[in-house]
Amino acid sequence: MKIGFIGLGIMGKPMAKNLIKAGYELVVCDLNEAAVKELTELGAEMAESPLEVGKICNVVVTMLPNSPHVKSVVLGENGLIKSMKEGSIVIDNSSISPIAAREVAAELAIKGIRMLDAPVSGGEPGAISGQLAIMVGGSESDFNEYRDLIAANAKSVVLVGDIGSGNVAKLVNQSIVAINIAAVAEAMLLGKLAGTDPEKIFDAIKAGLAGSNVMNAKMPMMLNHDFKPGFRLSLHKKDLQNVLETAGSAGMSMPFTELAAKIVYELVETGDSDSDHSAMLKYFEKLVGKEL
Amino acid sequence: MKIGFIGLGIMGKPMAKNLIKAGYELVVCDLNEAAVKELTELGAEMAESPLEVGKICNVVVTMLPNSPHVKSVVLGENGLIKSMKEGSIVIDNSSISPIAAREVAAELAIKGIRMLDAPVSGGEPGAISGQLAIMVGGSESDFNEYRDLIAANAKSVVLVGDIGSGNVAKLVNQSIVAINIAAVAEAMLLGKLAGTDPEKIFDAIKAGLAGSNVMNAKMPMMLNHDFKPGFRLSLHKKDLQNVLETAGSAGMSMPFTELAAKIVYELVETGDSDSDHSAMLKYFEKLVGKEL
Repeated sequence: MKIGFIGLGIMGKPMAKNLIKAGYELVVCDLNEAAVKELTELGAEMAESPLEVGKICNVVVTMLPNSPHVKSVVLGENGLIKSMKEGSIVIDNSSISPIAAREVAAELAIKGIRMLDAPVSGGEPGAISGQLAIMVGGSESDFNEYRDLIAANAKSVVLVGDIGSGNVAKLVNQSIVAINIAAVAEAMLLGKLAGTDPEKIFDAIKAGLAGSNVMNAKMPMMLNHDFKPGFRLSLHKKDLQNVLETAGSAGMSMPFTELAAKIVYELVETGDSDSDHSAMLKYFEKLVGKEL
Repeated sequence: MKIGFIGLGIMGKPMAKNLIKAGYELVVCDLNEAAVKELTELGAEMAESPLEVGKICNVVVTMLPNSPHVKSVVLGENGLIKSMKEGSIVIDNSSISPIAAREVAAELAIKGIRMLDAPVSGGEPGAISGQLAIMVGGSESDFNEYRDLIAANAKSVVLVGDIGSGNVAKLVNQSIVAINIAAVAEAMLLGKLAGTDPEKIFDAIKAGLAGSNVMNAKMPMMLNHDFKPGFRLSLHKKDLQNVLETAGSAGMSMPFTELAAKIVYELVETGDSDSDHSAMLKYFEKLVGKEL
């Protein structure tokens, strides 16, 4: 059984390689010819379009930048929906709006094509090492059937709920991460301005209730002003836009996320698009005119 | 050598008991006669006023609600400063404004009396079990001299910096905790409104970058709407006021802390004064008209 894999970007390419290593035969497709060549040299077949992939494969994995790309690849003129057979399945590892994921799944369902939304967390290092955390939405039987395939790239795979729920969990995750980064940046900068060494404060509080994975991972980067990604602000911007779109559609206001999003948007616009998201610190430093 | 202990409230009373258990002879003082009686029955001596305590003891521990109480007990008409000898020391375990801590220390220094500010984290359970985290500000030699006394109530004792730095670290801690609670509440409520079980989301994301001690400790309380303290909103209100006072005096604006403080103030005013701080969830639930 050949597995289709569409989207060989920073995340998708190492994930496709991991599937080959795990023994799967792949049919790959991407606009980037160099990436396609890298995979065909490892034994993958190539296809000219999603439509061609869908002709050959009953299981297609997609790893794309955002909702419009997924809609185009799955539902577009040369999309998977034109060729995939009844009973086949799309496993979408992209981080997109859960609303879009549900729309795509509904269109596929009309043709009897199944879908799991399975966004990942862990960034490029997690993709390369196959140690991502993957949050899945869809039916339990589909999840059980394709759990091993998904797990080839994961250290943890959790079925969160029905279709779209994988992306809901991912958005909740991204909202909390952005706010927790802001909390560390804002509060530690107060410590500095109040005359106390932030590194000492970090040592004193990290084991207590204020401690977090964000604090442990990002505080050293903030102290060194080392903003090599990690996770790019441009991607966090996209995720926060999807959070606020989802909130808007649910009639919910999210004051903390809105504040975090404003900061992320501003930094992306002023040249920090490719900085790690811990660079949110720079917004607060500018606000107070002093460095951490 | 007798140790003075002033302030036998929810935190101070168990802390004083731990000192007796550790073999210290105490001279206690509090307006609450029942609390004083409890300690004298355990062998403590009692004194009528801080001034009387200062006559007897060269080491006095204070554990009081806020800055004005510390100023009154140390610098007031019947305050410690009237009677303590040159070379003696005040160890203040209260969580107060670092500005106030520095003012009190400066007044004491004029009389040659030393001070450590040593606010604690860990709440009533930590005080009872003697497992608090204690952040200390002051000189290294004073810290080393009284480390064992402080440690009788602690699982960790860290010298953060010079006088006031203990309270700076505590405020940074409290600011981050309040914002992290808000992040969990706001984002998990989005998950619920977007149709996904928040408990499943919690399982899927807690080990990743969004994971935090706040999430682990407070998410189960939020899911059960169990807001028994823990840490009371009224106390968090006081701490956030001290954060914003300190920020104001440093000319710093703290947009996330200000937002969190607004929520805490509102809840305290509307009957949640004695709820655990995880009850910040209620603000967001009211905002969206739906429960987690």
